[in-house]
Amino acid sequence: MMLAQGYRMTQLVKRAAAENGTGTSTIMDDRTRTWDETCDRVARLAAGLHSMGVTRGCRIAILALNSDRYFEALFAIWWAGCEVVPVNTRWAAAEVAYSLNDASVNTIFFDAVFAQMVPELTRDCGALNHAVFLGAENEAGGAIAHDQLIADNTPMIDASQSGEELAGVLYTGGTTGFPKGVMLTHTNLWANTQSVFTDFYLKTGCCGLHVAPMFHAADLVQSLTVTAKMGTHVFLPSFNPETTLKAIHHHKVTCVLMVPAMIKMVLEHHGSADYDLSSVETVMYGASPIPEVVLRGAMELFHNAGFLQVYGQTELAPIATLLKPEDHVLDGPLTMQLRSCGKAVSFTEMAIVDEQGVPQPDGVQGEIIVRGPGVMRGYLNKPDQTAATLKNGWLYTGDGGYRDKNGFYYVSDRMKDMIVTGGENVYSTEVENAVMGHKAVAGVAVIGIPDDEWGEAVHAIIILKDGTKLKGDDLIKSIKDHCKEQIAGYKCPKSISFRKEPFPLSGANKVLKTELRKPFWDGQTRGVN
Amino acid sequence: MMLAQGYRMTQLVKRAAAENGTGTSTIMDDRTRTWDETCDRVARLAAGLHSMGVTRGCRIAILALNSDRYFEALFAIWWAGCEVVPVNTRWAAAEVAYSLNDASVNTIFFDAVFAQMVPELTRDCGALNHAVFLGAENEAGGAIAHDQLIADNTPMIDASQSGEELAGVLYTGGTTGFPKGVMLTHTNLWANTQSVFTDFYLKTGCCGLHVAPMFHAADLVQSLTVTAKMGTHVFLPSFNPETTLKAIHHHKVTCVLMVPAMIKMVLEHHGSADYDLSSVETVMYGASPIPEVVLRGAMELFHNAGFLQVYGQTELAPIATLLKPEDHVLDGPLTMQLRSCGKAVSFTEMAIVDEQGVPQPDGVQGEIIVRGPGVMRGYLNKPDQTAATLKNGWLYTGDGGYRDKNGFYYVSDRMKDMIVTGGENVYSTEVENAVMGHKAVAGVAVIGIPDDEWGEAVHAIIILKDGTKLKGDDLIKSIKDHCKEQIAGYKCPKSISFRKEPFPLSGANKVLKTELRKPFWDGQTRGVN
Repeated sequence: MMLAQGYRMTQLVKRAAAENGTGTSTIMDDRTRTWDETCDRVARLAAGLHSMGVTRGCRIAILALNSDRYFEALFAIWWAGCEVVPVNTRWAAAEVAYSLNDASVNTIFFDAVFAQMVPELTRDCGALNHAVFLGAENEAGGAIAHDQLIADNTPMIDASQSGEELAGVLYTGGTTGFPKGVMLTHTNLWANTQSVFTDFYLKTGCCGLHVAPMFHAADLVQSLTVTAKMGTHVFLPSFNPETTLKAIHHHKVTCVLMVPAMIKMVLEHHGSADYDLSSVETVMYGASPIPEVVLRGAMELFHNAGFLQVYGQTELAPIATLLKPEDHVLDGPLTMQLRSCGKAVSFTEMAIVDEQGVPQPDGVQGEIIVRGPGVMRGYLNKPDQTAATLKNGWLYTGDGGYRDKNGFYYVSDRMKDMIVTGGENVYSTEVENAVMGHKAVAGVAVIGIPDDEWGEAVHAIIILKDGTKLKGDDLIKSIKDHCKEQIAGYKCPKSISFRKEPFPLSGANKVLKTELRKPFWDGQTRGVN
Repeated sequence: MMLAQGYRMTQLVKRAAAENGTGTSTIMDDRTRTWDETCDRVARLAAGLHSMGVTRGCRIAILALNSDRYFEALFAIWWAGCEVVPVNTRWAAAEVAYSLNDASVNTIFFDAVFAQMVPELTRDCGALNHAVFLGAENEAGGAIAHDQLIADNTPMIDASQSGEELAGVLYTGGTTGFPKGVMLTHTNLWANTQSVFTDFYLKTGCCGLHVAPMFHAADLVQSLTVTAKMGTHVFLPSFNPETTLKAIHHHKVTCVLMVPAMIKMVLEHHGSADYDLSSVETVMYGASPIPEVVLRGAMELFHNAGFLQVYGQTELAPIATLLKPEDHVLDGPLTMQLRSCGKAVSFTEMAIVDEQGVPQPDGVQGEIIVRGPGVMRGYLNKPDQTAATLKNGWLYTGDGGYRDKNGFYYVSDRMKDMIVTGGENVYSTEVENAVMGHKAVAGVAVIGIPDDEWGEAVHAIIILKDGTKLKGDDLIKSIKDHCKEQIAGYKCPKSISFRKEPFPLSGANKVLKTELRKPFWDGQTRGVN
């Protein structure tokens, strides 16, 4: 392939600077920059990375809460010709170390919140040679400082990574208990970015608020789309209903991306009606359908906004379908569409297939499969799992569902054994591995159960070893504490129940989780992915 | 690369059928079809091609005037996993044969206008095994008929050609006297198609009129963009001001693509004001800037339309810049922008470089270079010309120009020795080769001279051999007749002058065409590419 002929992330920043150089690019606390400044800082930071010995093709992690410097680091990594590995900020150190080793990361950007984890990572990750503190030199505690690298270097020419070259490796929970690195190309990300022009209704010079974590594919695409529209990014370190409301009011934010649980918290926040939210034109949400009562409230609160549901997964970089504002119908026969995740995005082909991969007609249940330019290159170092997921260029989502005659997709079940809680994917196997490590546990099955706030909650059903001495609350606390040492807090069981009889098994001797879920889900629809 | 993961032309037709199946897809004379029908016909026609022995990766030519069947053949070729070679309908048989041989074309679609050329092509093109008549069986004269192939076959599954695989080879005039085959991938064409969503202002369900030739990259993109918007295509076999006006009036056309010479003819057509042209929302034009007087008239005639100038070349599939409706300012200080070709499209990076390839600041002249996902893979079978044109992923356009401080590009000269007449590129070398074959000619230099109707006209300056007997009009007619046997009519000299003294030469012994052009261009701006 000819070098540099394809889509390229850095082109977005260059264009924003070329056409809106004096426009505001980023706002964080009291720091405000223009696109000219951001483009210049990115080119200097990339030069700084090269000055440290980083070369084209290196993988560079970012372990930090949301910030303008996170945004600069993201583009500097691409400008330097490298691949970004955004780290899940909720992971335990052992999980982070696993992913850094898996991706042979050689440099990490970190902020003050994660400074304590860095020595441990440096010890456990053989390839990790450099750590850059996302801040000024006087706060860096001796580490190389982001701002100093920018000050000390002159802008380099864009290393021109593009097209089918990897832009990054994004980790998701793994079905076998290990996180999987999703390899995404520049084309993958551009395809999703470009949907801003078709479906997101963002206007040139829009103002996007980053409250969802920037390490997620969903917010990553917001980083790209707002840049493609040469707009302004406002960053909050993490989600908080009050600061979210304040930021929207103060900066006249036009687009926000949240999961329904966040929208609900904003809605229920005391005094939310006192803020001026009339600037918001687009509310994007994903990870689960929005309860009707929340939607009604949110549409009143964000009274000028169109609502847009996104369904997808990291493997699609990440968009598969969109439920558009005009399809958010609250009254009449079309309200059922609210339970849909919308139609395939303009660049994507979707189908429903049976277990043999045969396409099914409208209305018939099957597995949702997707193909198109958003489909990942594969899982890093996991050829078997890649082969099981990518067949003939189609991505097998692991989600069950159907398509109606109008082209709307409905996700009815996840075929992968996975729980979605507060927008995060949790693979049952991973939790089961952690629980099984506890000395009192003989057997465990982890399932998702309905939760008003988080969509689903992680629930463990445990069979105890004979002669276990711990009992009641002490036992539960002991198991939960044990899990927290192994895996991220959001993956740990929120509730635990015990059973004496063996688990119901399928013909293939697999635990029949559908049976275990039944008593919890009776009369409720299970959330979509 | 994983199979079928990228952008794919067939997805456009599939989506139009999935989401607007009962909407009108194509209109030609009294034939009207829906997207469901078109998608079905395309899938059957592809199966028909396979039934004839065509396989994935074959190259298939189309030699025909515009029609709905041309459109079906285009998508069927992709559906069958093949590459399209759209043939310039104005070429002489020898030029067509050269391109079919160069591309090892094994199947050709042809219509009644070109039926007579097919036996000659079959004789001269070794790989050409199949010819399909773009019509019904009773008109096919014994050839395989397009409609019959559709009737006789059941739909096949899309062969899933995509991404970096070639979608087609489009021929342009060659600097060395031979046409060059521009290799364009699915990604190249999709990048240009997707600009419909950003910059073309086409609405869902728009109605596009094909009067520019469908073999051109410009109209090819119209075939794709209107399909991407699930709209209606109206076809006229070729341009004619009266049928154009009638078609717009009758079918309520919303977008048209024309070169300025066509717009002028429509404008000057007797009775043009009697038609209802209020449906037209977008007038796209390219190949040369529009004279102010023509634009003023056209804006009055198409009073509801935005005007959009496209600058590009086949090597870019084909768009580099767009001058948007809001930049078409007729009065005040911004009128100078009308001489610009606009700003770089959203997915494209542009620069001005000097002869060493060093980027130049705003306002400084140099060569225009472009990179991004629209840039061709290269010239087929011409590695040297590819290497001279593609450097580090940048396409060197051969056009001289500059960028102003607001990001507008101005094309001030063509660095390649090329003439643009009525939207067609004519390389001087090609014409000079033809003229030199005449027995009376000792030397020739071909240049473009200003022409009110065509932008430029092809002019030959000839030095005769001693002792030539033919004189005056007889000589000129003899030379013109000789040329018409060799090359397409539009490439032949429109006018000829003679000189006795040798041509002025550069230090490198090249003819100084700038000197030869001077007397013709005094006081006039040379047209852009």
